[in-house]
Amino acid sequence: MAKSWSTPPREALRVRAGFDLAKADLAATPGWEHGETAAEKRLQKDGEHLSELQERLYADGRSDGTRSVLLVLQGMDTSGKGGIVRHVLGMVDPQGVQLRSFGVPTEKERSQHYLQRIREALPAPGRIGVFDRSHYEDVLVVRVNELVPQEVWEPRYDEINAFEREVVDAGTTLVKVALLVSPQEQKARLRERLERPDKYWKFNPGDIDERAKWPLYQEAYQAVLDRTSTEHAPWYAVPADNKWYAQLVVGRLLRGALEDLQLEWPAADFDIEAEKARLDAQTL
Amino acid sequence: MAKSWSTPPREALRVRAGFDLAKADLAATPGWEHGETAAEKRLQKDGEHLSELQERLYADGRSDGTRSVLLVLQGMDTSGKGGIVRHVLGMVDPQGVQLRSFGVPTEKERSQHYLQRIREALPAPGRIGVFDRSHYEDVLVVRVNELVPQEVWEPRYDEINAFEREVVDAGTTLVKVALLVSPQEQKARLRERLERPDKYWKFNPGDIDERAKWPLYQEAYQAVLDRTSTEHAPWYAVPADNKWYAQLVVGRLLRGALEDLQLEWPAADFDIEAEKARLDAQTL
Repeated sequence: MAKSWSTPPREALRVRAGFDLAKADLAATPGWEHGETAAEKRLQKDGEHLSELQERLYADGRSDGTRSVLLVLQGMDTSGKGGIVRHVLGMVDPQGVQLRSFGVPTEKERSQHYLQRIREALPAPGRIGVFDRSHYEDVLVVRVNELVPQEVWEPRYDEINAFEREVVDAGTTLVKVALLVSPQEQKARLRERLERPDKYWKFNPGDIDERAKWPLYQEAYQAVLDRTSTEHAPWYAVPADNKWYAQLVVGRLLRGALEDLQLEWPAADFDIEAEKARLDAQTL
Repeated sequence: MAKSWSTPPREALRVRAGFDLAKADLAATPGWEHGETAAEKRLQKDGEHLSELQERLYADGRSDGTRSVLLVLQGMDTSGKGGIVRHVLGMVDPQGVQLRSFGVPTEKERSQHYLQRIREALPAPGRIGVFDRSHYEDVLVVRVNELVPQEVWEPRYDEINAFEREVVDAGTTLVKVALLVSPQEQKARLRERLERPDKYWKFNPGDIDERAKWPLYQEAYQAVLDRTSTEHAPWYAVPADNKWYAQLVVGRLLRGALEDLQLEWPAADFDIEAEKARLDAQTL
């Protein structure tokens, strides 16, 4: 039997007023007291549920349902976003997953409102969308590097809250995950990329430059968590020095989001007995 | 130790001149003599290789590589295209898979050349693309239902060969798989969709109408296999009455296609020792 959470991550990690990033223990595993091996079994089990729930969601989308789920992943370089995609989303049918990575905006994207490329990437009904980085970059990297002046980024927190309200009202459950690594752990992970030839491709000298701005990023993340963890779209602050813990958490959060939809298999929109008779009547 | 093929599917199933669809035994498992349980273990093992090879391909794409792989899946309703996506592509990182289903063309698509939507969906460098149905619909459903006159669809075989030549020359390996179910097996699978409430959503009354045209579809498939199984982009005719066999085959074909690329991990495009020194010099 797979072991269970003492406190589900939904409660243990939800960002509420007064959350202080500077005080978070990023090597801790809040709510989970069974270590890594039991976590892998638990994730496997959650994956089986997730896989069935995803199929129901997909079926619902094919039958005029409007529901979808959107996982928003934010975190510093090496915080494990890619590993979450591989190991957690990898447990469900690729057909049901709509993945989008947001890098430096293209010229065309820069000429548009910053939320435009986000709107275009929202998951279709029936899908689990995943944003690897997101509109939050527009108040993170943009703020830290002063890519636009403060009077431009300052109103974005409220805009984002209003935008997310709209998205939620249209039928999408938002699951916002901030993957929090410590600077020590980030250093070790970057070092590994410099030591293993199969990891060189993941290394970018710019990562070291961004790393130098750590206190500014902390400030920007704190502002995001203070100002955009709303009732309709809360943030989960996930200690991510242990990759296995972060993956376990995301698996559980997604499973919870899908369970909450309480979807049934769509009813037949045809006459079942008549169709059986038509099929049986064929000589093939 | 996972069991092996007596004849690899690449040889056993490749469509050569004289292939006769009407004579194919669709419940057979050519080249595999170890049954279903051993097949599942073999697929698991191939999946591990595939997963590593896919990461190399992805890394190559991120480092200015031009290679990609495109799996083209064709088959009658219920032939198991969706199961291949779930169970075979589901073994690799979703980030590396670019999936596209081609349904009835939209109005906009109908106003364009039939290959236009195909061109737009070709996999980016570094990706494994999957077409669930494809440009071949333009000589299958279109031919069978006379959606355009013969003088329009007739030249398409040559056009498709030229188009695929272009795609291959640009660096994409094509893996074209025709999933062949028998009409008896299709009947059983459709019947299941009418009997299980968790399958109703997959049933479409139109499937029974298409099924009535079986001989015309056979003729159209035979023409595709006769005329578009080229040296640069051969077809594999996969008996698909056993879903596990078809999945095993596709796993092996994809693994082979990726192995043939003989990709190495990309070299560092930065000074490794200098970057290590920069990282170590940071006080964080």
